[in-house]
Amino acid sequence: MTVLAKTTSELSSESVRSLYDQLVVKAKEISHLQGISGLLGWDQEVMMPTNSADSRANQLSALAGVIHAKETSSSLGSILEELEKRQAAQDLSTELNPYELANIRLSRKAYKAETLLPSELVQASASLTSKAVGAWAQARKESDYAKFAPYLEQQITLLRQKVGHHMKGGVCEEARKINEKARASLGLKEGDECYKGYYQALLDEYEPGFKVDRLHNLFEDLKKSLVPLIAKINAKNFQHDDAFLQGEWDVTKQKEFSHRVSERIGFDLEAGRLDVSTHPFTGGAHSTDVRMTTRYTLTDLKEGITGTIHETGHSLYEQGRSKEYVDTPVSAALSLGVHESQSLLWERMVGLSKPFWTNTLPLLKEKFQEPSHEALQSVTVDHFFNAWNRVEPGFIRVEADEVTYGLHVVLRYEIEKALVEGDITVAEVPGLWNAKMKEYLGLEVTEDRLGCLQDTHWAVGLIGYFPTYTLGSIYAVQIFAAAKEAIPNLDEHLAKGEFHVLKKWLNENIHQQGSLRESGDDLIFGLTGQHLDSSLYVKYLTEKYTKIYDL
Amino acid sequence: MTVLAKTTSELSSESVRSLYDQLVVKAKEISHLQGISGLLGWDQEVMMPTNSADSRANQLSALAGVIHAKETSSSLGSILEELEKRQAAQDLSTELNPYELANIRLSRKAYKAETLLPSELVQASASLTSKAVGAWAQARKESDYAKFAPYLEQQITLLRQKVGHHMKGGVCEEARKINEKARASLGLKEGDECYKGYYQALLDEYEPGFKVDRLHNLFEDLKKSLVPLIAKINAKNFQHDDAFLQGEWDVTKQKEFSHRVSERIGFDLEAGRLDVSTHPFTGGAHSTDVRMTTRYTLTDLKEGITGTIHETGHSLYEQGRSKEYVDTPVSAALSLGVHESQSLLWERMVGLSKPFWTNTLPLLKEKFQEPSHEALQSVTVDHFFNAWNRVEPGFIRVEADEVTYGLHVVLRYEIEKALVEGDITVAEVPGLWNAKMKEYLGLEVTEDRLGCLQDTHWAVGLIGYFPTYTLGSIYAVQIFAAAKEAIPNLDEHLAKGEFHVLKKWLNENIHQQGSLRESGDDLIFGLTGQHLDSSLYVKYLTEKYTKIYDL
Repeated sequence: MTVLAKTTSELSSESVRSLYDQLVVKAKEISHLQGISGLLGWDQEVMMPTNSADSRANQLSALAGVIHAKETSSSLGSILEELEKRQAAQDLSTELNPYELANIRLSRKAYKAETLLPSELVQASASLTSKAVGAWAQARKESDYAKFAPYLEQQITLLRQKVGHHMKGGVCEEARKINEKARASLGLKEGDECYKGYYQALLDEYEPGFKVDRLHNLFEDLKKSLVPLIAKINAKNFQHDDAFLQGEWDVTKQKEFSHRVSERIGFDLEAGRLDVSTHPFTGGAHSTDVRMTTRYTLTDLKEGITGTIHETGHSLYEQGRSKEYVDTPVSAALSLGVHESQSLLWERMVGLSKPFWTNTLPLLKEKFQEPSHEALQSVTVDHFFNAWNRVEPGFIRVEADEVTYGLHVVLRYEIEKALVEGDITVAEVPGLWNAKMKEYLGLEVTEDRLGCLQDTHWAVGLIGYFPTYTLGSIYAVQIFAAAKEAIPNLDEHLAKGEFHVLKKWLNENIHQQGSLRESGDDLIFGLTGQHLDSSLYVKYLTEKYTKIYDL
Repeated sequence: MTVLAKTTSELSSESVRSLYDQLVVKAKEISHLQGISGLLGWDQEVMMPTNSADSRANQLSALAGVIHAKETSSSLGSILEELEKRQAAQDLSTELNPYELANIRLSRKAYKAETLLPSELVQASASLTSKAVGAWAQARKESDYAKFAPYLEQQITLLRQKVGHHMKGGVCEEARKINEKARASLGLKEGDECYKGYYQALLDEYEPGFKVDRLHNLFEDLKKSLVPLIAKINAKNFQHDDAFLQGEWDVTKQKEFSHRVSERIGFDLEAGRLDVSTHPFTGGAHSTDVRMTTRYTLTDLKEGITGTIHETGHSLYEQGRSKEYVDTPVSAALSLGVHESQSLLWERMVGLSKPFWTNTLPLLKEKFQEPSHEALQSVTVDHFFNAWNRVEPGFIRVEADEVTYGLHVVLRYEIEKALVEGDITVAEVPGLWNAKMKEYLGLEVTEDRLGCLQDTHWAVGLIGYFPTYTLGSIYAVQIFAAAKEAIPNLDEHLAKGEFHVLKKWLNENIHQQGSLRESGDDLIFGLTGQHLDSSLYVKYLTEKYTKIYDL
């Protein structure tokens, strides 16, 4: 059925409720189409035969075109505009509830962000990214940064153009303010280049509402505490005996065990799937159709288990979305950092904890009874816990433990912000990277493939994304602390495998809240009465590892 | 990038080549989106978790809306209209090749068929179908035809409305002619009801260009030959010993064997997948991404093997589509009947043949070496062939052997044509069904769940579809005969497992031809110099089963 777009004057005679309802119809249609896109992405990584890469690219591109047209349609624009007029004239909170108001706010922001970009820029960016990824893969293979540098340079140019359009259109007011202040203090004229505040605009895409100066302070605090903690652990030069983790671990059994753990935690297999892919991820088509993946390595038991628990955390967030506001923007995750908090809360606060292994170690022993794993049978929970939580600085972020991981991120944040804002050049990246690795983790990088070429993020134009990993780990500690306060004897529940208690609390306090709040910081404040703060996080790490390493 | 639709006067100044190119751009976009729809359908049957039925329905409906809008866009209409003007004024074959001309013809027909239906009718049909399927399932379970009858009545009403719109708009000229002739001979005035020719219009959707009177003659010939053949086999009251097929067949081994057979035949796993679903089907997203399914039954070895070979035949057609005209209408299968000919050619002409089992029986023996299948090890190819080709009339179409299957279809054709054209009422269906079962197969139907309630087709509004199964089997025999003439020693190739010889011939002579011809009959005539004809088919069955049953 074709519904003709209404004219502005027709809309002006309608009630706020009717305008809102029309907005929801459009939002739901976009959500359905985005769900399809999510399924295609999952299929591509998990199921698709090799020869159909081209046809899948065509399908994704056709669908993206359709979604873009819906997201930027003038009929959607007219409804949003009329709602903006009403909002300027009266307080809509008498007619709409906070979730509905959030839907208007989020729809308006998304509409602006989509409509402000010229299609030439969107196309140039897609085209560059596909070339840049190829160049990066080659450069990493040969450990030859020079092969990647020109593409990074171009990505930064395009990202700056994108931010320019967004700032002009008012997508990120905070970024505009920073830029104006910097221009004024430098005495710049219109037309003079100045990229201050640009990182704020990029960060805002992944962590909406989060201010860069707060991020900066958090990360400075982290460095001050973690660099000496790591140095102390290093100086100890001691590791708990982990002979019981060596050898080969039957992949079918690993898979069965991971499925069991994931289901015990609360992953709903009637509303999702767990499969295998090269790089684990959580995606899918809907909160009732969450597709997560993991991977199993024959000689590394920990990778499959922690990977599964991590993705289960993401999946519980997706499966726990508000049913009342299903398929509207407010039901979506607040930010990447908050999403990561849910994966890390389960992976670390639960999955690396003694209560968790108190009930899970017997299941592990039950699963692996082969003579080759005899050593596992006699290990105690305390010993298992100490060895499972091994800390060891390394070059590669994705292999890092929870103590060193944060500094991998701080290093990337410092470099990418300086790059985008013009404080360093692309050529300076490797030197800076290596100096920081030495300073933060005490490691000498001898090859760029183990250094600044290890991650794909910059090649695909993801700048402002890395910080969300560490924001996630800080959120996780504060959210878990709030859960502990709210749930009597949480540790005892976890030790008995009663994970549903924690899951239910997260469902109510995080998952169903969706994007109601304006930032992750607001969410934490609403939950705990405190802003995001690295001190609880540092305290958690310090106390835990002081005991484990007897510091 | 938004491209504004061109005005009619702008188009009138463009070259035919340019108009054609614009048509292709639109056709390809539609094809990409249809590919997505195909993937969603596959996923729903094979991968989707149970709770996401609603979200998937929303996604499919949103996508269908998008595709419908593209298929009926006025910009597409303008291009087609301009091409029609040119075609009226000059012979376009000097500028476009036959494949390109077919693309114009097929696009015009699809555009008309889509634009002629009022959206209210499309919605009413979707809504009825979902209710009718529920009612049918319940009716079948309780063997209570009265519970389904009102829905069948409504489906027929809606189908007649649909045909009415199509006939008025000139989608099926043949149907209109039949109707006019009948009206004239009955002396009807405008406004008087007359449904003669309506079945022609419905058949045309599944078997384009095929005339109902030819179908009628083919089916009459079939009855004349097959009813006595079956009676003769029945009278013989003899079956070859098939003890070696009894017992339980390990499903994992069945799966491995089916995959092997499918790959040997030529299914390309780099351009497709083979999975398991409740009802076997071939679907997918693209000719480079063909998804087929089969099913395995513990106590029925034949079901999994023949099902896999059948779907492999469909898949080879899809994987063998023209690469030059990829994603345009001419690359698509000509008709359901021709598609079925490809599955049946492999399932029957090859998979039920002695040459095939000459090389495949040793592989089967190799796979199933358990003591419980000792009897298999000593069976000869001749004995296997005789027992594997068991004929036995039964109530259920999908379980029928190749001799009786055709009569199941003839019976349905006769009833559904009479229903749509108003010669019988819905209430008369069970009685007529049972009388025909007695006459054609010698069976007494005692319960409608084993009779007229067994198939889902009528519930979902598929009328005019059943005949394509039997047209497929007739095409298959004629196509296989043509292949035998073209390929020296084809039987010897098959006996050595050199299936690629036949596959290549089919690729070139059937698959890559796509929808170039106007009907399956044209295709056969082009290939063999003869029209479709049941006599070769009857000869094949008569000779084969006269030997097997020593008639």
